[in-house]
This record gives sequence, structure tokens and C-alpha cells, in this order.
Amino acid sequence: MKQFLLLLTHFILIVATSFAAAPVTSDGDDGYRLWLKYEPVTIPAIKADYLKYSGFIGQSSNGETIGSASKELQRGMQQLLGKSISVVSSPGNRAGGIVFKLKSETADKQDHEGYQIQLSAGNIVISSESENGLLYGAFALLRRLQMQQPLKNLNIASRPKVQYRMLNHWDNVDGTIERGYAGSSLWKWYELPERVDPRYEDYARANASLGINGTVLNNVNASARFMSQEYIVKVAAIANVMRKYGIKTYLSVYFAAPKTLGGLTTSDPLDPKVRAWWTEKVAQIYKEIPDFGGFLVKANSEGEPGPQDYGRTHADGANMLAEAFKPYDGIVIWRAFVYKADPNADRFKAAYEEFVPLDGKFDPKVIVQVKNGPIDFQPREPFSPLFGNMPKTPLGMEFQITQEYLGFAAHAVYEAPLFKECLDSDTYVNGQGSTVAKVIDGSLHGYTKTLMAGVANTGSDRNWTGHPLAQANWYAFGRLSWDHQLSAEQIADEWTRLTLTRDQKARGHVVNMLLRSREIYVDYNTPLGLSRPWMGVHFAPEPWQSRGSRPDWTATYYHRADSTGLGFDRTTGGSNALAQYQLQVQKQWNNPDKTALPYLLWFHYVGWDKKLSTGKTLWGELCTRLYAGADSVLWMQKQWDLAKVNLDPEVYTNVAQRLKVQHREALWWRDAWVLYLQSFARQPVPAEFEAPKQTLEDVKKSVNVYLIR
Amino acid sequence: MKQFLLLLTHFILIVATSFAAAPVTSDGDDGYRLWLKYEPVTIPAIKADYLKYSGFIGQSSNGETIGSASKELQRGMQQLLGKSISVVSSPGNRAGGIVFKLKSETADKQDHEGYQIQLSAGNIVISSESENGLLYGAFALLRRLQMQQPLKNLNIASRPKVQYRMLNHWDNVDGTIERGYAGSSLWKWYELPERVDPRYEDYARANASLGINGTVLNNVNASARFMSQEYIVKVAAIANVMRKYGIKTYLSVYFAAPKTLGGLTTSDPLDPKVRAWWTEKVAQIYKEIPDFGGFLVKANSEGEPGPQDYGRTHADGANMLAEAFKPYDGIVIWRAFVYKADPNADRFKAAYEEFVPLDGKFDPKVIVQVKNGPIDFQPREPFSPLFGNMPKTPLGMEFQITQEYLGFAAHAVYEAPLFKECLDSDTYVNGQGSTVAKVIDGSLHGYTKTLMAGVANTGSDRNWTGHPLAQANWYAFGRLSWDHQLSAEQIADEWTRLTLTRDQKARGHVVNMLLRSREIYVDYNTPLGLSRPWMGVHFAPEPWQSRGSRPDWTATYYHRADSTGLGFDRTTGGSNALAQYQLQVQKQWNNPDKTALPYLLWFHYVGWDKKLSTGKTLWGELCTRLYAGADSVLWMQKQWDLAKVNLDPEVYTNVAQRLKVQHREALWWRDAWVLYLQSFARQPVPAEFEAPKQTLEDVKKSVNVYLIR
Repeated sequence: MKQFLLLLTHFILIVATSFAAAPVTSDGDDGYRLWLKYEPVTIPAIKADYLKYSGFIGQSSNGETIGSASKELQRGMQQLLGKSISVVSSPGNRAGGIVFKLKSETADKQDHEGYQIQLSAGNIVISSESENGLLYGAFALLRRLQMQQPLKNLNIASRPKVQYRMLNHWDNVDGTIERGYAGSSLWKWYELPERVDPRYEDYARANASLGINGTVLNNVNASARFMSQEYIVKVAAIANVMRKYGIKTYLSVYFAAPKTLGGLTTSDPLDPKVRAWWTEKVAQIYKEIPDFGGFLVKANSEGEPGPQDYGRTHADGANMLAEAFKPYDGIVIWRAFVYKADPNADRFKAAYEEFVPLDGKFDPKVIVQVKNGPIDFQPREPFSPLFGNMPKTPLGMEFQITQEYLGFAAHAVYEAPLFKECLDSDTYVNGQGSTVAKVIDGSLHGYTKTLMAGVANTGSDRNWTGHPLAQANWYAFGRLSWDHQLSAEQIADEWTRLTLTRDQKARGHVVNMLLRSREIYVDYNTPLGLSRPWMGVHFAPEPWQSRGSRPDWTATYYHRADSTGLGFDRTTGGSNALAQYQLQVQKQWNNPDKTALPYLLWFHYVGWDKKLSTGKTLWGELCTRLYAGADSVLWMQKQWDLAKVNLDPEVYTNVAQRLKVQHREALWWRDAWVLYLQSFARQPVPAEFEAPKQTLEDVKKSVNVYLIR
Repeated sequence: MKQFLLLLTHFILIVATSFAAAPVTSDGDDGYRLWLKYEPVTIPAIKADYLKYSGFIGQSSNGETIGSASKELQRGMQQLLGKSISVVSSPGNRAGGIVFKLKSETADKQDHEGYQIQLSAGNIVISSESENGLLYGAFALLRRLQMQQPLKNLNIASRPKVQYRMLNHWDNVDGTIERGYAGSSLWKWYELPERVDPRYEDYARANASLGINGTVLNNVNASARFMSQEYIVKVAAIANVMRKYGIKTYLSVYFAAPKTLGGLTTSDPLDPKVRAWWTEKVAQIYKEIPDFGGFLVKANSEGEPGPQDYGRTHADGANMLAEAFKPYDGIVIWRAFVYKADPNADRFKAAYEEFVPLDGKFDPKVIVQVKNGPIDFQPREPFSPLFGNMPKTPLGMEFQITQEYLGFAAHAVYEAPLFKECLDSDTYVNGQGSTVAKVIDGSLHGYTKTLMAGVANTGSDRNWTGHPLAQANWYAFGRLSWDHQLSAEQIADEWTRLTLTRDQKARGHVVNMLLRSREIYVDYNTPLGLSRPWMGVHFAPEPWQSRGSRPDWTATYYHRADSTGLGFDRTTGGSNALAQYQLQVQKQWNNPDKTALPYLLWFHYVGWDKKLSTGKTLWGELCTRLYAGADSVLWMQKQWDLAKVNLDPEVYTNVAQRLKVQHREALWWRDAWVLYLQSFARQPVPAEFEAPKQTLEDVKKSVNVYLIR
């Protein structure tokens, strides 16, 4: 009865709120529920069908993660169908329910986390060899129910293509996030371990619903604090929540911690005291977190300490840590993102040069984590030449979900096409079809460990990601980490259905907009293979920046514009970075006349008047893309408006307002590039485009505002 | 009908959610609504009474702020009574409603924002000379209704004692908050001006409900960015929201902006070009924000630029800015928080020495904003000796709501007693009863401008303040800025009723806990007049820190412990800071035997074995307070538990978990002080207390963890 009164109270509140003249935030969809909205099923026949299996949830084995699966099904079914369902431990021969079935393990490790969903003896049966698999099966079923798909002939079997599917949080101890655009860190270090924010659980649910099974809580530019007992118990409190959803907790480590925290005189990986320190440290962690996932390491990169400080190799450093993990399941993930400050070198080549010679020298517990492209998460990059060239070392993929170079939280850029473009790239190392995806999923080289990581875009903002559409990037990363063969379109459609609207027409508009958004961004931001027109802020256009603390921290290093042309020659006549790829790949990209335009300036220095395959000169084509890109944001606005009636008003307004920011900034980018490159090309803007109304100095002035401390 | 379906959908959702096995965040009270929860009236007779006035809302004048008042009444009445009420513009002789009455202005400026609420001709009539007053009246009425107080003989008249009631946000352009413990900044600079977060409006509502009429959006360590047109339009978008709730928007300014942003060669306040730059800048702001509030300035303080860089005085700097505001209503608020790095000086005396000689030299548009104490927002300080000593210069009060020195978001410290202690302090400048409050409200010196500012504790956390009980500090500040005669107890009771529970007994437990919380914190943190045992982080105990970049940025500078005693001698035998006070105040504090114990070590160096009025030695009394303080956190936990059944479960758990953090950290503080001071006093811990189990080195080690980058 008290429960009921409480409900009634809620109801009255909501009635009142809904009529209120001035809406408050909480009236609309605030985005907190992500793609797990579980809104009531509206199609009567479908609902009737679903109700047939709403008699009970059969959970005959115990376990924290199975328990979470049952709870999630309860929650989901109740919200979808308005019916409370009990969990029974001995369903016996009962029919009309959903039954979890834990099967015995087989030899094929890839099956372990997989699941099957079938209709059997009047029940929906979700079976798996593991608790995680049952949880994933429950979420898969709920996804289907949310999309109001019929159950007839239900027969799903799915297993992950990649073993370690994880988020990397670049979250600092002070609560800030490096490259975070959605508020502050989710992790409240000053309140832990006693205070456990209930949000941690919703974070875990969202990830588990996609099949993500690991999370690295702290920034790769790591604080040594995390190796202290004080912080280990804080981490353990989070790990206790993650565990319930099948997620293992990992930490980034500061390589010099033995010195700075342990008080040793060195952090040399070959020093026995250092090795003992790490061994003891890992043991200390496992005492608090028995299923600890492992370490992620950024070493000898951008000023971070590492084994090279002692004349040792990356393998020496990684293997020392791997040794400390020997008694446990944990792994060592070693980042390949390294490049030296050499004015004559090509940063493009750095990771390959450092790591390929080490192939075969890493401990089996080590995975080398490679960014998708050779530079740094640009709007478009060719795939990293490391993929395919380290057959004896498991290479993991590092994608960036947070939009560091993609307009922060103000630009709508759906990233699945970017991820897919890399995964589908052919390395040709074992002949045609040797895609990056096959490197990553282990099938090409027989890797025994496989990994896909995404640098998270989550933060404390109520809707998790700041831009409502950025939720789709988290979703897409998760889904692709499970199955890289899903198409960008399928994922977009799924996400839109679950998150924004079930209406087919409205969905079409939104999906179209999502699918084109990345190419539109590339057009106004870095067309034709331009890259890195940023200095430190990575926000405003700064292609003119030529002074930095090191040569590869300038913008001019990357585009090399001068009075005769533009672009970075990476052929034999230039840095010859192309030589790091297989011949067939070189062939794609070594001839400027045959190089696909999106990659042109990545590999070639091209004259301003060079005629491209479009029939336009380089200058003309650049202008065309910059103008078209900026104009296309208006097209995006139009698509969004066409979906309006089928969208939650708060979400509609939120995105509509951000699309206005995006358009203003797209024009800014366009003008910056056009005016800056014009100062070299010395040609008028083609007559069909209205020349920028501002001068280059005007643009620089407005950019400089954002460089003021 | 669509509306109804929507409601039904919501209802089903809620039914379902409430039964769900695993609660998600959104199930409980997430604290977002603050003290404006408007939960349904539960007492039938009271409800019937209220319904008598629910026929209509009479709003005969137009205006954005009156409109907000009507909307808020609609929203409130609907949620409280479950009834939708229309706003009518011509109520005529209708009875049974709530009528707004805008009266003509009188000469008494203090009346302008005041309001009256009376029963008249069958209506509740809210009258005021201003739109703001009507809004404040509406909120006052709603407060009464929320507390379920009878309307019989309703006759309220209230007017603010202070003219400028404002929050100071120390929010940076990068979204971080200096001394913020509740997430990131509310202001999303990268999304503005197009994207206007609906939360801005809820922020404005919360402030207006307390009578706050101004907000300074950015940190006093100000970025010059805010003086750019790019940022002015962003600020204007926020100001447009604030205006609806009678709140003026202010900015902190970077004094060197004419150089760094304007490209001038100097920022000398007497330079005509500099003066012209500011004049033009202010005009530019008013073009976008016609009701702009003014500037807040931190100059020549902690490394910030200022007029002294050019051999000019604070008055020169402030008056230059005041001149720029001449055509407008805006004001200049100049902070008195200055102190030089002089190893032989007493920082206590710095502000007085700098500012008292300038009394009478400031433009009438300038208010000098003074921190409550002479040092820096310590858990307890004597009142600043500036109060009472600048009769010709309006002095405003600067309180700190955010808990920089009060345990961040982990410790429950209700600040109203701290605020009141300062406001009620007697300066004796015009004889007994010359309280700080009378300085601040202008009655003592006839100030024509009066101001009370609070450094905000708000952030992007869903519940605004991180610690749920920290909401009470925002509330208390706001209420006291309107009426400093309200008691800490009355405010605590009001807040608890509005926010946590209407149950009288539970309320009693919570209010008791709140009222004692600050003294408990002082006991374990800085008993007997100790201060500033922190270095830069202001989190962990560091009384041993003796090396800093300047002498007054160490901990030992403040407590001066050695083998014979402890404390800072500020009598004639010492720094003689006491001489800055009136004789009667000196008399209170210049004799160690007569100095009230809470202030003892603020003014005296006291021997370890000195017998205090408690009958214990200094060492014994210090131990007693440190132990009692830490133990009292258990008492707080007990009070909170006693209220549990009447509290929302999510709020209960949130606070209960934080009280555990608080207890652990209180023991940490206790041990740090006891062990550190023991190294000087060389005496055992009194037998009745269990000596710390850890060593001083242990404590230092655990503190050092938090100093790692």
C-alpha cells in the first residue's frame, strides 16, 4: 500500500509537471537511459506475442552476473510490457517464460562468451557457456523486444569476434578528462571507496548491453596514485560494481611508479628490485580485486617515462609487467603510440619503426595496442602500417570514441563509417582479403589474444556524452567490438530505433544524417587527405600554426603548403612511409593520379593547378569540398527537422541547437582553410562560391580568442 | 489524447521501474529539484484551504519576470495540489485566486524588491514595487505551501536587507571549477551561444527562490576570453535566461586584458588609451546585455595583474572601470583579498593595510568585497578587521559556500553558523552593537550600496552540490543574503522540510546534526583557533608542510608549533594584528586567559602545559577536541540513521556513505595533528584516549599519495 501511495504520488507529480507552463529539464527525455529506454511496446499483436513468455524467468544457476541478467530482463520486460515477472530457480517443465541455460564449456574459447536464443518447449531459452554470455543474450533479446521485432522462428546465435572489448577512460585523478567534452569524470575518487555512485551501475549496464567486458578507469597519462593502497581500494569499489555486469577493471600505470611511489632509485625494467616491486604491486591489487583485468601502458611517448629511459626496449618494459601478472589472468596492454621529436623524420613512420623489430619479443601476456591510423585519430587516416606487420605479436585496435578531432560535443559525427573504413582496409599481407579486421580478430595471424579498445566519450553530463548523437558512437564502438561485420547503417538504424524514435520515416532521416555526417565533417575540416590543422587545443582551425615546442606539434608540418602546392609526399620521392605497406597497398597510393581523393594529400604533394579526377584543379576541388561540407550542415539540420515530430522535444532542441553551433563552426573552418590556402595558391575562390566575407586576419583573431588561457 | 497517452506511458514506466529488482539512479530522489520539490500536500484540511485559492492566477501586468512568477506558481500549485491553474490578465473582482499586484515605486530603495503577501477579498494578493519582488513573493508563498503551513491570517511583509545578493562562480573557460567539488562547470562555453542548456533555467529558479539577484559567471582568476565578442555573445545567451528570473549577470575581468586582448602596450589605469579601451568594452557588453551587472576584479593578488603593476592604487584601478560604467547601472566589485609575500609580515594584516588608507577614494560605483575573515575561508576565523574601518567605502561580504577548506564534497558541514558567527560579530566601531551585519547592510555607515556574495558550490553533478547536505549551504547563503537576521536553526529546519522530510521527528535529527556539524569539523580539523594546515590541495592534513614558494604558503607559518608551545602571537608582543580592531575587540582577544577558546591560537602563542579554562592543559585540550571531533562523526551517523525511515532511500544512502568517508578522514586528521604536535609537545596522548595506531610517518605517507600529480 505504501508502495502504491508512492506510485500515486509520482503519478500526480508527473501529471502536474506535464502541464506546467515552463518546462524543466526533467520533463523531457534527458538522455540518461541511453539505448536502454525500454519504452512500452505499442503494437498489440507484438505485445500479445511477448506476453506469452512473460510468465517467469528461469534462473537455475547462481552467480552475480546471471543475477544481473535476470534483473535486467525483469526490468526490461516490466517496462516494455507493464508486467512484473518473478525469477524462479527451478522452472522444471514450466512453459511461458524465459529460461537461462548455462552450458558446459567447450574447447573453442571464442564460444565462451557467445549465446544462443531460441524458442523451445514454449519458452524463450537463452543459453551460453558463461554467465557473461547469458547476460549478453538477455540484452540481445531485450534489444529485439525494444525494436518490436516478432519472436516467430526466433533463433539467434552470436559470439564475439574479439576477446577483450574495452573502453579506455582518459580520466585524471582531479576529476577532469583529457579530451572529455561531456562534463567531468564519472569516477569520484575523493568520495570512494565508501561512497559508490549509483551511476557506476548504469554505466556498467550500458556497456554490458553492447558486450563490452573491460574498462580502463584512468588516463594513459597515468598518475602513480593509482598504485597506492589508498587508490587500489577505491578502484576495488568500482570493480565490485563492474563485476556484476561481467566487466573487468583495468588501470593505466605510470612507468616510473617504482621510483616516484615506491622510493626506489630506478624504474629500470631489468632491475630485480623494480621487478619485485611490480610483482608485489600486482599481488596487492589482486588481493583487493580478484578479477583485475590488467595494465594499460603509455611509455616513452609524449614525455611519459618508459623503458627507453634505461636503454631498454618496449618489449623489456612490457615483459617485466607481464611477469608480474604470471599468477593471474590479467594482461598487459602496451600502446604503440610513440614518436620522437625528429624534424627530419616522418611521424607517420615512427610506430612501425619502433615496434616491427620487436615482433616476437613480447611475452604472450602482452597485447600491443595500435591506434587505427599512423598519426593520431584524425577525421580520416589511412590504416596504421603496423597492422599486418607484426604477425607474432597480438595487436589490439585503439579507436577514439571521444571527438577530440571531431568537433568536441558540438559537431554531429557518426563514427561507425570511420571505424569500418579502417577495419575493412586490406593490408594484403597474406594476399587479398587480409583486412585489418582479420588482423584484429586474430584470424589472420592466429593471435591467441584479441582486443578492441575505444577511448571513451562518457562524462558526468546527464546524457553521458554531451551531444545526444554522440551516444551513437559509444553504441557503435561497442557493437563493432563484438562483431566488426555489422554495417554502419545497421548499427545506426538500431541505435536510432532504440534511442530516438521507432517511426520508420523519421528514423530514415536520422540514419541518413548519421551516415553522411563523418564525410561532411571531413569535407569542411580536412578534405582530400589534409590532417592535423590544430595545435594543442584541437578545437579551432589553426592551419597556419608553424611554431611549436617540437616540429611535429605544428600544423604546417602536416600539410606542407607553399606557393606551388600542398600535401605530404610519402612516396619514394618523399619520406617513403608508403614502403611500410604491402606492394598492393603501395600501388593504391603511390601514384597521385590513381590515389583515391580522400587519401591524396596524405601521400602526395600536389600542385595547385593539378587537374584531379573530378575535373577540377586541386585548388578548385578543395574549395568545392570546403563549401559543400559547410553547406551540408544545413542539409543535416533539414534531416533533423524532418524527424522532429517523432522526436522527444528536449532531445530535438538539444541537437537542433548544436547543429547551429556546428554550422557556424563549419563556416569558420571553411573560411580559415580557404583564406589560408589562398595565401599560397593565389587564386580566386571559384565563381560559384561566395568568397569569405572576412579576412584571414579576422579568422586568426577569432581563433586566437580560444588560445587565451 | 496524445498528452494522455504520454502520461500513461510515463505511468507504466514508473510502475515498472518501481518494481524493478535493481534500482537505477532515476528511481530515487536524485536531488535535482533542490528545495523546489513541490511534493503533494498531504494534510487534507490544509489542502482544502489551499484549493480555495487555486481558481486562477491574476497577472495584470506584463513582463518577463512577472511571467516567471506566474509560471512558477502554476507549476508549484499543480504539483502541490494536482490542479492546473490558468493565468488571467484581467481578474477583475474574481475571488479564489492568487493575484499579483505591481505597486508604484516609492523613494525607499530598500522597499523596491520587497513583497507583501496578504489575504484580501478572497484572494491571496502578492504585491511589490518590482517584478523581482513579485517573483520573490511567489516563491515565499510556495515555500509556505510546501511546508504545509496554514493560510489563516496570512500577512507577510519582507524586504531584502542587502541590495546585491549574488553568487560568485570560480568557473574556468575549460569547464573546470577552481575549488569545485560537484563536477564541472554548469556553463558550456563550447556549446554557447546557440545551445542553451535547460539547466540554466533551473539554476536561475533556484537562486531566485532565495532572493539572489546576481551571478558572476567566471572565476576571479579570470580569462581575458570573456572580454572578446565571441564570449560576450555566449554570456548574453546565459544572461537572457537569468533575466527571466530577475538575476543580473556579471563577469570577472582580467586586469591586463587591454594588453593581452586589446593589443595595447600597457594596462595602466591612468593611461587614456586603456581607459578608452575599457569604456568601449563596457559599451560593447551593454549592446548585447542591456542589464549587465558589472565587473568583479581580483587584482594584484596571488599573481594576478593589477594597477600596482604601474604604481597605481587599487582605487585607481577600480575607479577607471567605474568610469566605464558611468552610462549604465552596472557596478565594479573590487576584491580586498590581497597579501604580499613578506616573510616578516603577518598576512592577517595585509588587506587592512592596503585598503584602509584608500577609504573615501573609491568611485561611488565601486564596492569593495571582503572575505569574512582576514586569511582565507578557514573553518573558523575572527571577522576581518576591515569591517567597520572603511566607513566611506561600501564593503561587501564574501562568503565561501563551496567547501574548499571544509572537506570538499565528502564532509557534512552546515555553514549557516559560520556565516552567522561573522555577521553577528561586534566591531564596536560605533559602540556596542556595531555588528558586521550592520556594516554589510549599510545601516552602520550609511552605505548607498550593499552586497553579499557567496562563492558557489554548484556544479554539473545531478544534485548540483555533490554532497546532498551541501545544498543546505547554498540555501542558507541565499536566505541570509536576503535577511541576515534569520537564525541558522530556522534556515536548517526550513531547508530540511523542503528538501528531505516533512516528518517532525526526523527533521529534528537532521537539524541537530546540521547545527552541530561545523563545530564538529572544527574540532577534528582546526581546533582552538588553529588554521590553514594545508598546502595547495586543501584536502589532506599537512600541518608539517614548511616549504612553499612563499612563506605564507606553508602550514607552519600559521600554527608556529615548537617545543614550548603553539599558536600565532598577534598581540603587541607579536605581530600586533589585534591593533587593527577596536579596543573592545582587542580586549576580548588580547589576553590569553580571557580569549574564548575557539580563537585562542589565532591570537596567542600558548605553552603546551598552559592550563586552559576547561581545566586541561593546551595539549590535553587539543587531544580532547581532536578525539571528540572525530568521534562526533559517529554521532552524526546516528542522527542520520534515526531519520532514515523518513528519508528517500537514495538520498539516505548517498549521505550515509559520505558520512563514512567523513569518519575515516576525521580520524586521519585527528591522527595527523596528534602525532605531529606530539613531536613538539613530547607528551603522551591522555589516558582516556586510545593513542593513534599509526606513526606520523604512516600518516605523511598516506597524505603524500594525494600530492602525487
